[in-house]
Amino acid sequence: MSEWRKDPIVDRWVIISTERAKRPNDYHEIQEGKKTQECPLCEGKEKMTPPEIIAYREPGTQKDSPGWWVRVVPNKFAALQVEGEPALRQRGVYQAMPGVGAHELIIETTKHEPGLDTQTEKQVEEVIWAWRERSLDLRKDFRLKYIQIFKNTGSVAGASLEHTHSQLIATPIVPVDVSQELEGMKAYRTRHGSCAFCDMINQEVAEKERIIVNSDHFLSLSPYASRFPFEICILPKEHQYDFGQIREEMVRDLAGVLHTTLRKLTGLIHNIPYNVVMHTAPVNTPGETHYHWHLEIMPRLTIMAGFELGTGYFINPTPPEIAAQALRETQELYPLKERPVKEVYQYV
Amino acid sequence: MSEWRKDPIVDRWVIISTERAKRPNDYHEIQEGKKTQECPLCEGKEKMTPPEIIAYREPGTQKDSPGWWVRVVPNKFAALQVEGEPALRQRGVYQAMPGVGAHELIIETTKHEPGLDTQTEKQVEEVIWAWRERSLDLRKDFRLKYIQIFKNTGSVAGASLEHTHSQLIATPIVPVDVSQELEGMKAYRTRHGSCAFCDMINQEVAEKERIIVNSDHFLSLSPYASRFPFEICILPKEHQYDFGQIREEMVRDLAGVLHTTLRKLTGLIHNIPYNVVMHTAPVNTPGETHYHWHLEIMPRLTIMAGFELGTGYFINPTPPEIAAQALRETQELYPLKERPVKEVYQYV
Repeated sequence: MSEWRKDPIVDRWVIISTERAKRPNDYHEIQEGKKTQECPLCEGKEKMTPPEIIAYREPGTQKDSPGWWVRVVPNKFAALQVEGEPALRQRGVYQAMPGVGAHELIIETTKHEPGLDTQTEKQVEEVIWAWRERSLDLRKDFRLKYIQIFKNTGSVAGASLEHTHSQLIATPIVPVDVSQELEGMKAYRTRHGSCAFCDMINQEVAEKERIIVNSDHFLSLSPYASRFPFEICILPKEHQYDFGQIREEMVRDLAGVLHTTLRKLTGLIHNIPYNVVMHTAPVNTPGETHYHWHLEIMPRLTIMAGFELGTGYFINPTPPEIAAQALRETQELYPLKERPVKEVYQYV
Repeated sequence: MSEWRKDPIVDRWVIISTERAKRPNDYHEIQEGKKTQECPLCEGKEKMTPPEIIAYREPGTQKDSPGWWVRVVPNKFAALQVEGEPALRQRGVYQAMPGVGAHELIIETTKHEPGLDTQTEKQVEEVIWAWRERSLDLRKDFRLKYIQIFKNTGSVAGASLEHTHSQLIATPIVPVDVSQELEGMKAYRTRHGSCAFCDMINQEVAEKERIIVNSDHFLSLSPYASRFPFEICILPKEHQYDFGQIREEMVRDLAGVLHTTLRKLTGLIHNIPYNVVMHTAPVNTPGETHYHWHLEIMPRLTIMAGFELGTGYFINPTPPEIAAQALRETQELYPLKERPVKEVYQYV
């Protein structure tokens, strides 16, 4: 069983999980020139994963067998477990609690392909539906306070399996990065009477220079204070605090914007390693309606080194205005399915 | 000229510095099988760096010529510049100011060697004296509020030059990670009437299981809520809020503890990539005497992926009790100068 441990000084929790060290890693085998292990996420290998939680599949096909197009399973090497109560234990200056939470894998396609960008727009839409369905279901468990949806693409970005997938970790605590954003939004609202993200969207639409894609419902842009070269933020234009509020026409629109944005990014730098992170309001925590949910895409071309780890500040060699222009001008270079597969390492 | 930009929601500043993209990189050339560029940090190459700020050198030798054993120079590809006023500009929701600050390189030895661990204990002591001297000098500039001393070892940890060196970035703002620690320490003092780090030290000495080295003046330990496998914290046992308060006998003692700790770490995992980060009280900011300075050593065996980047929380597969035991039991395997030189990549 894993354990949540809190730093004695700051609001930083760590999951100590020996289980995670056991997971297989495609990339180590590729680096060592070995044949990649049998992929547990491919169609026909359904028995290699724990039993599926949900799957979008052809009518008449069996659970845990072929016939699906998106499949959600518990992470076999889970950082957290669903059983137990998140009861705090104190010993001297230290606090800990059992590693309660949920850790799921969203398998984004049946084929062994390394990215969401090589899928069709329709397939991206299906993945977003799965994110939404799991988010709405998990919040029925009142022990859970936050649902973190994220995606690691490329070994440099922390992926251990090559087959494209996203993950969901539901935690019994509101993460510090989210509570700090909530505090910042509250402070802004107190001063200005409006949502900081809504005001930012208006300013970005007027200034234009950091916008990548501007659709009916979403804006894809290079953040003004980007931490990473080619960092991207995708936001709903209307004020929604919770990703779970997304409507059907918005899911379709988001699929288009996310697909286009990722294809521009991988068109500009082939096989760029990146993380996608959802920021949304906590669940089972009433009154957080002043948040504004969004997706962050963080390419991993630079390394967080001593300065970043010591200060929480970042050094970024690529101005976001230049990044946005390059992404706007980049056509989606590779037709679907023809992208060369080669790992890109940090080059900045 | 670089620019400080603030995130519109949270207290996170970013340095946009196109200058940083121009720096040379030993590791790219090593990876590509090329001969490494001429090293600007080696003895005899003093003219390749900007003029030295200080150097510890033989009597009678000339500035910017051989005869030194520790040398401090401005970073040629500086993220910040000493000229100018850190005057805040506001445009709509955004804030920026000129990239004012200092960025220096502490060249830790004359020879082309990749780590501080292969130096003598006496040489480590000289490096700590240089850190102290620069810290005391830079604070005379009242524009500067924090002096971040750090070290990147190995390309995975963000080093671009192989020749062992540390860096110093002085900022006109107190970094968010430091102000959050200060707030946590204040809250603890209000509740308990004591210093959280002093109480932690007492508990660690009593519990023993996370201690690596316990000397006259310093404790080297695996933090209870370690974010990274084999993370290490080195703290003065007496309450000092400011690294600049370190006394002569403490500098000697810290050199021994840091040297032994790094040699145990590299003895356990050869050529382990790691960052060293100093945490100390802000300067020119009176009243922060409740802080407790310390060094953090962060090995880079795991990758900060989507979960870490989204939440600010960490997943660590190695319990600190096991890490501390392994480090306690590790003898310093390699005699000085005989360590094999090979880059280690992430393996967890």
